[in-house]
Amino acid sequence: MKKISFLLLAVATVAAAVVFTARASRRTDQEIAPIFVTTIPPGYREWRLISVAHEEGNLNDIRAILGNDEAIKAYREAKLPFPEGTVIARIAWRHVSSEENNKVFGRDQSFVPGDAPPWYLQFMVKDAKKYAATGGWGYAQFDKDGKPGPESDMKKCFPCHQAIKDRDFVFTRYAP
Amino acid sequence: MKKISFLLLAVATVAAAVVFTARASRRTDQEIAPIFVTTIPPGYREWRLISVAHEEGNLNDIRAILGNDEAIKAYREAKLPFPEGTVIARIAWRHVSSEENNKVFGRDQSFVPGDAPPWYLQFMVKDAKKYAATGGWGYAQFDKDGKPGPESDMKKCFPCHQAIKDRDFVFTRYAP
Repeated sequence: MKKISFLLLAVATVAAAVVFTARASRRTDQEIAPIFVTTIPPGYREWRLISVAHEEGNLNDIRAILGNDEAIKAYREAKLPFPEGTVIARIAWRHVSSEENNKVFGRDQSFVPGDAPPWYLQFMVKDAKKYAATGGWGYAQFDKDGKPGPESDMKKCFPCHQAIKDRDFVFTRYAP
Repeated sequence: MKKISFLLLAVATVAAAVVFTARASRRTDQEIAPIFVTTIPPGYREWRLISVAHEEGNLNDIRAILGNDEAIKAYREAKLPFPEGTVIARIAWRHVSSEENNKVFGRDQSFVPGDAPPWYLQFMVKDAKKYAATGGWGYAQFDKDGKPGPESDMKKCFPCHQAIKDRDFVFTRYAP
């Protein structure tokens, strides 16, 4: 009887150890391989405006940041974290001088959207469970043909956004 | 009988001359004094995005151009002139360097909307009859408190927009 009890305890201990190891390894895998968004959220071009921005340097683009209804509501109510289902869209165009505008104004001052750069479309999709490895946000990038960005680029999203965890990982503020 | 006919003719001529003069003077008055839009079109912040822009020089702003349903439909179908009821909204914010973004990126590259300049909101409202004196468009400007721009400023709108009559007086092109 004593022998059987010891055997059962040993089996249970080994089983528990196996389960624990499997769980830990799964968690580690998830941290190493975050999940990215691979389809363009439909209808994003109909969404309302959150803000605009201009990035200089290597990017040299001008951009609009749009949000679905969940995003706009949360922004206007200044509610953090953003609720499940929030999607934020960022459209970027090359920042180009507008010859036709400048001709009318009589001076070089007007910059407008040019062609789509390779980082044309970016999205952040809130799903706390699915994207747990990257702070509850799934990241996405697409070029003008709808082709997703290379995984090597996508892996750079979260490390940068992580720096603004207290703003729920979102850079853009609402422009009133 | 001949005398009466002559008198009637004289009276009719004078009357016609009076009517003609009144009409001509009314037309001249309208050309001299265009009608401006003095109320902010309601709900403009819910409208869809047409494009974005950055103006350097004295303006130094970053802007979003939004359109009501009539505007968006006409833009997407590339239809000119814009239909009656079209309203185009232009929101401008001061173009400011984002310290909080630059800190994360490790370089000065990010520009975002700052405060509202005195030319914060501008609108173009299409009503061919009401705004006949200015190409069928009524112009408007408001500061952040909703105060309309001074008439001296408003008189500068049409002379500039007149240069692009073949685009129905609208500078902004649709950013896809």
